[in-house]
Amino acid sequence: MITFRDKLCAAQKNHQSWLCVGLDPDPAQMPVMPGLNDVSRITTFCQAIVEATHDLVCAFKPNLAFFLAHGSEGLRALKETIRAVPDDVPVVLDAKLGDIGNTQRLYGQAVFGAFDADAVTISPYMGEDVIIPLLDAYPGRGVYVVCRSSNPDGGRFQDHPGHSPYLYEQVATAAQGWAQTYPQSVVGLVVGATQPDEMVALREITPELPFLIPGVGAQGGSLDVAVRYGAPIDGPGPLINVSRGVLYASKRADYASAARDAATRLRDDINQLRESTKDHQDEQA
Amino acid sequence: MITFRDKLCAAQKNHQSWLCVGLDPDPAQMPVMPGLNDVSRITTFCQAIVEATHDLVCAFKPNLAFFLAHGSEGLRALKETIRAVPDDVPVVLDAKLGDIGNTQRLYGQAVFGAFDADAVTISPYMGEDVIIPLLDAYPGRGVYVVCRSSNPDGGRFQDHPGHSPYLYEQVATAAQGWAQTYPQSVVGLVVGATQPDEMVALREITPELPFLIPGVGAQGGSLDVAVRYGAPIDGPGPLINVSRGVLYASKRADYASAARDAATRLRDDINQLRESTKDHQDEQA
Repeated sequence: MITFRDKLCAAQKNHQSWLCVGLDPDPAQMPVMPGLNDVSRITTFCQAIVEATHDLVCAFKPNLAFFLAHGSEGLRALKETIRAVPDDVPVVLDAKLGDIGNTQRLYGQAVFGAFDADAVTISPYMGEDVIIPLLDAYPGRGVYVVCRSSNPDGGRFQDHPGHSPYLYEQVATAAQGWAQTYPQSVVGLVVGATQPDEMVALREITPELPFLIPGVGAQGGSLDVAVRYGAPIDGPGPLINVSRGVLYASKRADYASAARDAATRLRDDINQLRESTKDHQDEQA
Repeated sequence: MITFRDKLCAAQKNHQSWLCVGLDPDPAQMPVMPGLNDVSRITTFCQAIVEATHDLVCAFKPNLAFFLAHGSEGLRALKETIRAVPDDVPVVLDAKLGDIGNTQRLYGQAVFGAFDADAVTISPYMGEDVIIPLLDAYPGRGVYVVCRSSNPDGGRFQDHPGHSPYLYEQVATAAQGWAQTYPQSVVGLVVGATQPDEMVALREITPELPFLIPGVGAQGGSLDVAVRYGAPIDGPGPLINVSRGVLYASKRADYASAARDAATRLRDDINQLRESTKDHQDEQA
């Protein structure tokens, strides 16, 4: 089996891309498709987005909630969406899994077995019992630990107790330990682009961990910060995630080509920033 | 619509029970059922457990992972399991939901819409953006916030920074605020029976919040502590959850009657402890 690490590194190199497209299909924002119910529209829509953008991205990130909302039929749409992704592009299922032990192993069976994703997001509140069962049972996959999130109230608990060591720093330190114990897997951090100071701090604490970066685009996070601090010293670069900015670039019948245009612009913007960051670093060296 | 609060209070009173049976159907531990595949066995098994114990419990708590592991077919089993629960017994879906905003609202649509549960568990790492969307969109339902969990490594982040105010105390204080803002809903805490000191502390901090208490039985938590500190000063009593001790009381064809016997013993043990606690309190008064 090809590992998530190898697949991600290859996609980032071959597609010259750190862009991850988030698949959050919302029927209210999708174009009208006469004769199709919501679940069929979701499947058609996601397949078209994947088809139109797969050579521009390093990964796709389907969001479990948008499929689960439609019950067992919705999960069939998830499966068909993931099946539409070419083998050379990894899939990160965004599920914020937060349970433990045997329960978490069964979530792993769902994510890596039933839905055949390459990586998953987890919520670390319950400690290492959330992540170890996945790393033990599914070597070679990826697990991104929510560390410092991009939402308005993200700091309430993540910044506890209000001074260093913040909770999110402790989570990052723990994640670094897990990454060292399971070198075959990718253990990464979810760090919001809306939190530039925290991202800088986290890059210092964990120079070797890959980041998954939401919050660029609709949420107003900085692409510049994501590019500058997103990459670890070695291994896979960041997944810079954009969902709405690509999916709903047009809400009409031309949505797929509009998504392709938006993804192209984002990938190129990211690459231009990578170049200028590199030039700047070369000058300093 | 009857609220979760009313339904839970009625079931606790009418069944004289604080026992919650956790539905974690594991095919490896279930009896052989010739001619049935795993998903059909899960459906049959859960329906039989519900049928055999519904008049002895105050709630059922299906665990999403055990169904999701079997993909879209597994979710059909979940739906059929929940449909088998009589209308007068509430269903708490154990999902440890941990996402935010619109995503969390869609998880709500899954839990309260597609699967028609009365309450759900959440993981609070991402702050109030995890709970407010559910309370806003689904008034009258229940949300149990994981606060101090029963697993071995539960303290790693929940006890941060190693002295009071611990993170779990901050979560409890926040939950109390949410409960006050949304009095129609039930906002409760998940507190492991394996953590007696923390349970005592949490009962002091949040005298009005209902608890969902895992960790009794297989995990070795104290039933006495659960009974003594589980109940708030007013409103619904605790959900004292037992899964394996009921589900797998027998692994043979008599599993349903064995489950009924185990549930009866547990309910009666809890009620006996309630009586002796009450006597003790009466003496002191």
